[in-house]
Amino acid sequence: MSLLGNFSVVESVGPGVTELKEGDHVLTVFTGECKTCRQCTSGKSNMCQVLGLERSGVMHSDQKTRFSVKGKPVYHYCAVSSFSEYTVVHSGCAVKLSLSVPLEKICLLSCGVATGLGAAWNVADISEGSTVVIYGLGTVGLSVAQGAKIRGASQIIGVDINPEKVDIAKTFGVTHFVNPSECNESIHQVINRITDGGADYVFECIGDTRMLTTALQSCCQGWGLTVTLGVPKVNPELTAHYGLFLSGRTLKGSLFGGWRPKSDLPSLVDMYTKKEIQIDEYITHNISFEDINQAFSLMKEGKCLRCVIHLPA
Amino acid sequence: MSLLGNFSVVESVGPGVTELKEGDHVLTVFTGECKTCRQCTSGKSNMCQVLGLERSGVMHSDQKTRFSVKGKPVYHYCAVSSFSEYTVVHSGCAVKLSLSVPLEKICLLSCGVATGLGAAWNVADISEGSTVVIYGLGTVGLSVAQGAKIRGASQIIGVDINPEKVDIAKTFGVTHFVNPSECNESIHQVINRITDGGADYVFECIGDTRMLTTALQSCCQGWGLTVTLGVPKVNPELTAHYGLFLSGRTLKGSLFGGWRPKSDLPSLVDMYTKKEIQIDEYITHNISFEDINQAFSLMKEGKCLRCVIHLPA
Repeated sequence: MSLLGNFSVVESVGPGVTELKEGDHVLTVFTGECKTCRQCTSGKSNMCQVLGLERSGVMHSDQKTRFSVKGKPVYHYCAVSSFSEYTVVHSGCAVKLSLSVPLEKICLLSCGVATGLGAAWNVADISEGSTVVIYGLGTVGLSVAQGAKIRGASQIIGVDINPEKVDIAKTFGVTHFVNPSECNESIHQVINRITDGGADYVFECIGDTRMLTTALQSCCQGWGLTVTLGVPKVNPELTAHYGLFLSGRTLKGSLFGGWRPKSDLPSLVDMYTKKEIQIDEYITHNISFEDINQAFSLMKEGKCLRCVIHLPA
Repeated sequence: MSLLGNFSVVESVGPGVTELKEGDHVLTVFTGECKTCRQCTSGKSNMCQVLGLERSGVMHSDQKTRFSVKGKPVYHYCAVSSFSEYTVVHSGCAVKLSLSVPLEKICLLSCGVATGLGAAWNVADISEGSTVVIYGLGTVGLSVAQGAKIRGASQIIGVDINPEKVDIAKTFGVTHFVNPSECNESIHQVINRITDGGADYVFECIGDTRMLTTALQSCCQGWGLTVTLGVPKVNPELTAHYGLFLSGRTLKGSLFGGWRPKSDLPSLVDMYTKKEIQIDEYITHNISFEDINQAFSLMKEGKCLRCVIHLPA
């Protein structure tokens, strides 16, 4: 499983659930889809008003927990509560899979890989021959690269301070690697030179709001689009000079790449099955649950892409 | 003439100018169109790299002035230098008009009215039945309203602290008038109630960057678009919490409503001639050049929409 998604086998279903049954394989997702609210019925949003991003540690439906230890509640985490042998999720957060799909690979579609592909396809809608810049080459950034490559982008410029990303970046389609530590001028100047005046699309996948100005300066006037994907740990305010927008730039955000989990993820799973998208290549480590802290260390140190955590059978 | 555009009759043309001749009527525009640069040839931008917004007081072509008094240079203003009986502009900033078009009306298309219509049509591309919020009901904001009305928006909510705008706002299509001075709750809460969760499109036409958060909070999650049109006098930094973007909102800017002056303005002139758009109604005052300071006072006090300044015949 990844941090915000996992794969599960249905153990039992609650009253009223008809679309799932014991033994079904599912992806559980941190943001759900009720299919009835204004957002779900719009056909153009995944910001479900009923099963949206849960941060309170309780179930959407009744605001209670489903776990307890000696009578004391144990709280949920982002609707999925992945790090346990058994969990309880709303059926709107569970995406049914074919039994033949390898769960230990496809689980990456519950968050990072899908987020990057969706940013490239749903949010930016990258066009053939265009130029793309990606700040931050973690799994999300490299998934944007894969999405851009599939759309036929002519230049995919990856920016990362970790020189060890060079080779893996190529695997996913990055055509130019820029390491800010090795540049003698501002990064946006480097980008503007490579792209002859700024890229068509820029993706901020670091999660550092201080990068916004650089990102906007890296996309071209007139139609340049900056997509912000990162979730910052500090400095939650995005700040930029109004002139960057007056000259025709756009800033766009999204959650989970704009995918509606139940309506859209099956098509991504299908693409994986047909080998149209890469997923396995993001899995750098398979780790048993008892070593989970090692996985967090690898993530913090930038030494992994995705660690798949395996619970005891 | 308006502040950033004017109407002129061609007195003479310089060497190499073939598309204009003595006696032609033209609109002069603060941002030009060379038709050869990356931006002009893209077909999707008006940010001409050769004749873009001129702020240095000199001609684009040779970085010199065309005016002087007793040997000392007199500088240009935004390429048009409107407040004089004679001016010199680049032919790329002059839009040829039919001789039958009333210059003293159509001059409003050189800036404010075109900017608002373009924001509604080119930048936001307002769809039928959608909901629209406009912060600031000056000429630009009221032109957005007109553009939204023509596109068939179902709700056009105008926000202004000046209660005298109520009647004129209706003239241009505003369906709901909200005066922040008369509200007991946050404006975005009022807007969210009227629009059942946020508008499809929000336009910031005040030129106050501090309004950005309120504007973003007024448009809906998932697909809400905020268009920033104003040019702030102070506080040039736009700041907003990243979460407003993570939930699927977009911020977009543009100059002059995205219109390419020479390629696109003739179609707007044509719409005026066919009475498909209103222009005359924005002209609240006709003032002779000697009283020009009165026009500025009216503008600063919010007591006019557009004052047309008439130079001595």
